[in-house]
Amino acid sequence: MKPASVQPVDIVRVDGRTREATVDSVAVERPLEVRVDGEPFSVIMRTPGDDEHLAVGFLVSEGVLDARSDLARITADGDVVDVHLSAGRAGQGASLAAARRQVTTNSSCGMCGRVSLDQVDRDAPALEVAWTVDPAVVAGLPGRLAAHQPAFDETGGLHAAALATLTGEIEASAEDVGRHNAVDKLIGRMWMTRRVPLGGVILVVSGRLSFEIVQKAWIGGIPMIVAVSAPSSLAVDLAVRAGMTLAGFTRDGRFNVYAGEERVPGRPGLGLHGRRP
Amino acid sequence: MKPASVQPVDIVRVDGRTREATVDSVAVERPLEVRVDGEPFSVIMRTPGDDEHLAVGFLVSEGVLDARSDLARITADGDVVDVHLSAGRAGQGASLAAARRQVTTNSSCGMCGRVSLDQVDRDAPALEVAWTVDPAVVAGLPGRLAAHQPAFDETGGLHAAALATLTGEIEASAEDVGRHNAVDKLIGRMWMTRRVPLGGVILVVSGRLSFEIVQKAWIGGIPMIVAVSAPSSLAVDLAVRAGMTLAGFTRDGRFNVYAGEERVPGRPGLGLHGRRP
Repeated sequence: MKPASVQPVDIVRVDGRTREATVDSVAVERPLEVRVDGEPFSVIMRTPGDDEHLAVGFLVSEGVLDARSDLARITADGDVVDVHLSAGRAGQGASLAAARRQVTTNSSCGMCGRVSLDQVDRDAPALEVAWTVDPAVVAGLPGRLAAHQPAFDETGGLHAAALATLTGEIEASAEDVGRHNAVDKLIGRMWMTRRVPLGGVILVVSGRLSFEIVQKAWIGGIPMIVAVSAPSSLAVDLAVRAGMTLAGFTRDGRFNVYAGEERVPGRPGLGLHGRRP
Repeated sequence: MKPASVQPVDIVRVDGRTREATVDSVAVERPLEVRVDGEPFSVIMRTPGDDEHLAVGFLVSEGVLDARSDLARITADGDVVDVHLSAGRAGQGASLAAARRQVTTNSSCGMCGRVSLDQVDRDAPALEVAWTVDPAVVAGLPGRLAAHQPAFDETGGLHAAALATLTGEIEASAEDVGRHNAVDKLIGRMWMTRRVPLGGVILVVSGRLSFEIVQKAWIGGIPMIVAVSAPSSLAVDLAVRAGMTLAGFTRDGRFNVYAGEERVPGRPGLGLHGRRP
C-alpha cells in the first residue's frame, strides 16, 4: 500500500524560533477520471489504490450499477478507470453521462464538478505578496481558532476556519460540517465588502488540508494557510504553484512548513532530524 | 450561532454492558439549494448560518462571481439562496446553470451532483436485518480499524474504513484522503464478488459521520455503522429512516448509540447522566 498512498516531501520544521530542513510523508491525493463505456462520467479526488473498486462502489452508490450482471469489464490505465456495462446495457454510457449532467453540479468540494481530468486545473495568478510572519504567531493560531469554535465544543462535529492578521488577531471565523463550506463562508463574507483578494491575512483551518481548500484560498488571494493537521500531496503541490505558504501539524508550539517557507523566518537549528512535531 | 448549528438528539449511552438513555448535541447538517438568477445551480450540504456568504463564496470559487459589481442582490428563504447577477450579466443564470451541467458531475461525496433539493433523497428499502452485537465488540472496533491504517500512521492524513463481522473481525479495509472514497472502495470490492447487500457486517469509519456515508451504507445494505467521532444531524435522521444502527464517539470502551439501539443489547445503568463518553 505504501508506495502509492504515501509520498515524501521536503519540509521546514519550525520549533520556537528554530528552523530545520527535513523530510515528511504526506498522503497522496490525485484525480481519478471515471468513465462509463468510454464516456467521461466523473473525476474523483482519491488516494491511488483500489481504483477499480472505488469506481465500482461509486457507480453503485450513484445508481449506475445495480445487479452484478450490469458490469461487463473494467479497464484501468493510470488515473483513468473505464467501466464497461454488459450487453443488455451497452452503449448507455453516453446517455448516462448526459443524464448525469442534467442533474448534477457541485457540492461543498471545489473539485466535484469536473467530468474529465483536463477540467481539474483552475489556476489563478501566482501570489506575489512579500511579507513575513513571526513563527510564534503561527504557532498560536490554532489556539485562537479554538476559541472561536463554540459549536465544536458542544458537538465535536464541526470544522472551523478563520482569517487572522499577521499579528495573530482573528478577524472572522466560521464553522460548518463541511470544511470547504467554512472557507467559502469566510471568503464570501470578505468578497461582499470588496476585501478580496485577501493578500494580508492567514487562513487557519481546524483539520486536514486537501487540494480544494488550497484552491479556494488561491482564488481568494490568500498567501498563507495554517492547518492543525496534515496536508495532502496535491495540497502541497498546488501551494507551491500558487506561491502560497502552507503550514501543517501546528501543535504545541511547533509546525511543519510544506511550501513558501520564506514567509516564516527563523534561525537554523541543530540536531532535530525528521521527527514530526 | 447555537440555535441553528447545534441540535439535541436522544441517544443511548453504552459503557461496558451498561446502557443509559440520555441526550447529546450534534452538528446540524442540512441541504442548501443555491440558485443563480432563479435557476437551480447546486445543492450544498451545510450547517445553517451565513448562508448568503456561503453561496457567494462558493460562486466566487466556481468562477461565477468575479468582480463585486457582478452581484445585484441575494434573496434567502429557508434552505434556498438565490444570487441575482447585476444588469450587465442579468439573465445569465440559465446559461450558467446549463454550462455548469456540461462540465460537472460527482466527486467523492454522495450529495454532490444534486442540483435541486428534490433530488437529494435517494432512499433504498429499509434495512430489516434482525441481529444483535455484543457492546464489547462495538467498543473494540476502532482499535481493530487502527491496526489496518498503515498509511495514516505515517502521514496522519488518511481516512480509514473497514467492514467487520459481528464478532469483530475485520474482513476488509481501505484508506483514502476522501472518507467517502474509503467506503466506496469497500462496497465496490464486495459488490464485485456479489456480496451486496451486506446484511451481516458492520461498517467502521475513522472520523466523523456525515449524511453521505450513511447513504452509501444504506445502498450497500449495511445495517450498522460504528464511527470514532461525531455524526451529523442528517446522518442520524437518515440512519433512523434506514432502520440502521449508528454508533459514534466510540472511545475508551464507551460509545453513543444515535439510532437502532435494538441491535446493541445491554442492561440499564444507574447514575450516568448526559456526559459524553
